[in-house]
Amino acid sequence: MSEEFMPEWEGFAPGRWSKTAIDLRDFINKNYTLYEGDDSFLASPTEATKKLRDKVSELARQEIEAGGVLDMDTKVVSTITSHPAGYIIKGLEKIVGLQTDKPFKRSLQPFGGIRMAQNACTQNGYEVDPEVVKIFTEYRKTHNQGVFDVYTPEMRLARKSAIITGLPDAYGRGRIIGDYRRVALYGIDLLIEDKKNQLATSLVRMTSKNIQVREELAEQIRALGQLKELGAIYGFDISRPAKNAQEAIQWLYFGYLAAVKEQNGAAMSLGRTSTFVDIYIERDLKRGILTEEQAQELIDHFIMKLRLVRFARTPEYNALFSGDPTWVTESIGGVTINGTPLVTKTSFRYLHTLDNLGPAPEPNMTVLWSTKLPMNFKRYCAKMSIKTSSIQYENDDLMRATHGDDYAVACCVSSMRVGKDMQFFGARANLAKCLLYAINGGVDERLKIQVGPKYRPVTGDYLDYDDVMEKYDDMMEWLAGLYVNTLNIIHYMHDKYCYEKIQMALHDRDVKRYFATGIAGLSVVADSLSAIKYAKVKCIRDENGIVVDYEIEGDFPKYGNNDDRVDSIAVDLVTRFINKIRKHHTYRGSIPTMSILTITSNVVYGKKTGNTPDGRKMGIPLAPGANPMHGRDQHGALASLSSVAKLPWRNAQDGISNTFSIIPDALGKDSTVFVGDLDIESIAKELNK
Amino acid sequence: MSEEFMPEWEGFAPGRWSKTAIDLRDFINKNYTLYEGDDSFLASPTEATKKLRDKVSELARQEIEAGGVLDMDTKVVSTITSHPAGYIIKGLEKIVGLQTDKPFKRSLQPFGGIRMAQNACTQNGYEVDPEVVKIFTEYRKTHNQGVFDVYTPEMRLARKSAIITGLPDAYGRGRIIGDYRRVALYGIDLLIEDKKNQLATSLVRMTSKNIQVREELAEQIRALGQLKELGAIYGFDISRPAKNAQEAIQWLYFGYLAAVKEQNGAAMSLGRTSTFVDIYIERDLKRGILTEEQAQELIDHFIMKLRLVRFARTPEYNALFSGDPTWVTESIGGVTINGTPLVTKTSFRYLHTLDNLGPAPEPNMTVLWSTKLPMNFKRYCAKMSIKTSSIQYENDDLMRATHGDDYAVACCVSSMRVGKDMQFFGARANLAKCLLYAINGGVDERLKIQVGPKYRPVTGDYLDYDDVMEKYDDMMEWLAGLYVNTLNIIHYMHDKYCYEKIQMALHDRDVKRYFATGIAGLSVVADSLSAIKYAKVKCIRDENGIVVDYEIEGDFPKYGNNDDRVDSIAVDLVTRFINKIRKHHTYRGSIPTMSILTITSNVVYGKKTGNTPDGRKMGIPLAPGANPMHGRDQHGALASLSSVAKLPWRNAQDGISNTFSIIPDALGKDSTVFVGDLDIESIAKELNK
Repeated sequence: MSEEFMPEWEGFAPGRWSKTAIDLRDFINKNYTLYEGDDSFLASPTEATKKLRDKVSELARQEIEAGGVLDMDTKVVSTITSHPAGYIIKGLEKIVGLQTDKPFKRSLQPFGGIRMAQNACTQNGYEVDPEVVKIFTEYRKTHNQGVFDVYTPEMRLARKSAIITGLPDAYGRGRIIGDYRRVALYGIDLLIEDKKNQLATSLVRMTSKNIQVREELAEQIRALGQLKELGAIYGFDISRPAKNAQEAIQWLYFGYLAAVKEQNGAAMSLGRTSTFVDIYIERDLKRGILTEEQAQELIDHFIMKLRLVRFARTPEYNALFSGDPTWVTESIGGVTINGTPLVTKTSFRYLHTLDNLGPAPEPNMTVLWSTKLPMNFKRYCAKMSIKTSSIQYENDDLMRATHGDDYAVACCVSSMRVGKDMQFFGARANLAKCLLYAINGGVDERLKIQVGPKYRPVTGDYLDYDDVMEKYDDMMEWLAGLYVNTLNIIHYMHDKYCYEKIQMALHDRDVKRYFATGIAGLSVVADSLSAIKYAKVKCIRDENGIVVDYEIEGDFPKYGNNDDRVDSIAVDLVTRFINKIRKHHTYRGSIPTMSILTITSNVVYGKKTGNTPDGRKMGIPLAPGANPMHGRDQHGALASLSSVAKLPWRNAQDGISNTFSIIPDALGKDSTVFVGDLDIESIAKELNK
Repeated sequence: MSEEFMPEWEGFAPGRWSKTAIDLRDFINKNYTLYEGDDSFLASPTEATKKLRDKVSELARQEIEAGGVLDMDTKVVSTITSHPAGYIIKGLEKIVGLQTDKPFKRSLQPFGGIRMAQNACTQNGYEVDPEVVKIFTEYRKTHNQGVFDVYTPEMRLARKSAIITGLPDAYGRGRIIGDYRRVALYGIDLLIEDKKNQLATSLVRMTSKNIQVREELAEQIRALGQLKELGAIYGFDISRPAKNAQEAIQWLYFGYLAAVKEQNGAAMSLGRTSTFVDIYIERDLKRGILTEEQAQELIDHFIMKLRLVRFARTPEYNALFSGDPTWVTESIGGVTINGTPLVTKTSFRYLHTLDNLGPAPEPNMTVLWSTKLPMNFKRYCAKMSIKTSSIQYENDDLMRATHGDDYAVACCVSSMRVGKDMQFFGARANLAKCLLYAINGGVDERLKIQVGPKYRPVTGDYLDYDDVMEKYDDMMEWLAGLYVNTLNIIHYMHDKYCYEKIQMALHDRDVKRYFATGIAGLSVVADSLSAIKYAKVKCIRDENGIVVDYEIEGDFPKYGNNDDRVDSIAVDLVTRFINKIRKHHTYRGSIPTMSILTITSNVVYGKKTGNTPDGRKMGIPLAPGANPMHGRDQHGALASLSSVAKLPWRNAQDGISNTFSIIPDALGKDSTVFVGDLDIESIAKELNK
């Protein structure tokens, strides 16, 4: 860092961020303005916003009419600088920049895999230019090719049978959040200077490990140069820091835009930007160079751009992830480690876009919920949730203890410190299927082939709890090892062939890496084991002696009813499996974590999992994430939530998801509805006026 | 290996090679026919050979006229299968296959570095297609780019000042010999089967190391598929073993051709093929399906093809390596580990091409010389040497102890077991310059900038031996570390961006890797240290206090006169430097070796090395390899050779070269000239008849 206080920083309180190092947390903490008021200050959309919104709505309508895709690049390979400037309506946009040269035109991203790119085109009636196919077949190897070169037959089988699923081996791993705020606060030149210094002070004992770090830094520096060029394509000089709110949002967005031009990641999340942006808006408001209406317009146009993010994907991908998700997750709110809320007026402004632009699933507005959030903000969140169903909530009080107060959520639930942590995304292992493998000695109940090791299957007509548990433990041991090794290949190859150079350029050098594994089918397994333990479960075998169905005699406790007999089984499973994961070498010294997270893919997993000992039939979806199986939580919402709450977050640090809809009946008819200290009913009533 | 004895092997003695594993050594030992007769059986060139030879001569003449390059590819990127079939004169060639679609047309090989490829074109009046430049700049990173991304400023400086020189960071490292004989003996399908088995039995704990091995095997398998396709392009099905001599040579040559289509290596050596090929010729002769004239024609046409190998290179490369060398080294002769010579009629036939096609530097015919070679073969070698000056000799008795009897020489002197060892080529460190750095505290005497560490320079007017040695030892310590680390980067990147997939496909899986360092300036340093020790050496400083010249008072012993006082210094230097090299981490667990080898590059090194304390002036070439400095070996040939012979080969296992011309005076006028038991004079006289 140079010691100079940049002219663009005038009015900001100096600190470590301006003197010593890239430090966004320090900047925010020293400069943000807490807002504890209500939503009455918020401004309506401007005429420009309305015109743009209508144009986008019209294009969105056309996209749906066209079958889901309006236009695709088939020749221009997407890079940070691959496209000329593109606009929705040129002149009206306060924040500019598109992935390609036209809105709703999907870019061509073959670095992850040329076949994936071709399929995505073919399935939508387009064809990738043969020259591009040749380049990415003969000259430029892709991530996908690298992975499949190294896979063992066992890995291919496990993938085929879907005991390991959703692996990012044919699409970008995503889940890496660049600290896009750095672009605005420092400008590209200071960031390049910092990265050059990182390279100059990197280890010079040239082991493969150290060489890799140095090469990546060189790639990052090159990417920052390209990012500067991207700014220039749209007529901006982003080499210097942003000098006002409009520039701050624009610079920040260029950083994000570069990332989505370069990577087709499963989740391309934004970070935690609203309070950062608010600092610029506050300064402009104080300087009298911005009105509330103009401030809201900037946010509206920014959020509109985030809604336009599109990727060319295959029907299989869409089946797994349901729809066309990009998980542009923005984390809003939360509390500092000193207990002060990080809520600003711009926290409101971001959520207000749901009014000004209409409800939308993207960007994925995620409120970092704390009991310490200002009541007015809590009420506003509740109001907007009721109104739009478009807000996600996460437990800041829990995550703050581990991550401090400048973390953000990638995708749905993966928390990481912005610019300091990254994650090797690992999709998930199907623990329900693993239980069936334990029972059948590694034979897949659906494909009828040996996939797992040839351990001794269960014999006899009835399942014995101790016998099944012993076999299940062995089978999980196998699955954990196979799973980790598979992920090691994927992330080695992703780094080699599809490295996220601009996203990592917006990270510190010495990042903490998480190795994010995941499990599916938790509640099915808990209930199955409960059935085996507390009821009698009879095996039904097919002509080959494979157990293909179960008959349950008697009742058994079910997960989701705050019943420790079965909840303890679920808790044990989580800890047991992550501990098995932890026994294995993980790529680049990454720290194993686990998620219990399936929001839509549980449907596909269910299709690929045979009948289970809890009575669930083949094809029936598994419960999403850590949810109880549908309809089995019969003791009300609190009991259901209590079961989930028992799961140890430390052993599932990558996130525990619970998809939960409140219907009045579930909450009881006669009492006032509170969530914590929040009177939900009165907010709802107010809205209905 | 399948257990089946292939029909093409009929007539061969079976063994481990046919039952258990790829084993060329076993095949050769069990099947070759020792020939102890003379050269009287050799046949003259056929009409077809003469026509082809004349056409090649004509094209060679045109190439010289055109300034060194006759034609270049600027659009087609060279891969194993990139070109349609090409011929010298279609129909006349018994062995077919060209690097491109026309003889003397140089291929475009950008994987090592696009700038190198562009420069090679530009310097010869061609221009690389902009689309290719774009592909290899934006989409496909090259070896050269990777290396320069990671280099430290110190490495760049050491490269610029030429204390480390000739690094393969802008051209292919070469020096890897595929076992091309395998293609003929086994055919591609068996080789693929073997490689698939290697992959299936590779480690499945997915560390980066193991992933790399597995990915390389997958690349090798793919390359073998492409090699099969290359055969098909010329109308041959090389999936099966060769069934006669013509096919054996053709299959073998396709293997080599694939290698030179894929790699632009500094030395693309052939291996040890003549005795292998002889087995097929003997079988055909016995079967009556081949005459001696036809046999010689096959060899002539094969050797002619090897003479056509060309690469697109830059003037800087040519300055360093003098001319247009490719080092298609073929190792001939040698003795088995049981003491039987490996000489066959085809050993004669290969050398006979120097008569039938005329003398030529390529392929680099290298006789593995042993006292045990048959006298008739020795005499023939001597005769052809006198006649053509086109034969290189290496000490088989020395190398056999380390490598056994199926090694070959890559480039000039690098010995390795064929298909079992490979080498990471490392060019060389300039020890003469290092001595000057020791004297000047790391300041470069020519560039006048600090390159080495800022150690204390020599003070005072006269050099003190102990003082200089202490400083020199420290400076060598620095140089060795920097050198090894630089090479580690180069070979990491070469594997990453320019992997020799077809050459390594013709190796075993678990190869021994040599880390081949080299030194230049040995005799200059030995003489300099001798002058400091035995005479008085006065320092002449420039205005900045840098020692730029030396005045020697008195005489001193000089290397090359069998004088232990100075020869022991040379011996000590060799051991001292390799031991410093050995202290460092080397890429992929490779085994450090060292060469004392500069055949032409010593001229460039001399230009870049200032005045030295032995009285040599700036710009005067260093002596080549381990040679004494020109004119200083004043006690005759034997004394000169004796000095060189003292150098410990175990500490310079990658080879010690001595460029040596015999003139009658050096051998004495009155005695008969013998080299070992070989009466050279009588051979010479016979030739002069």
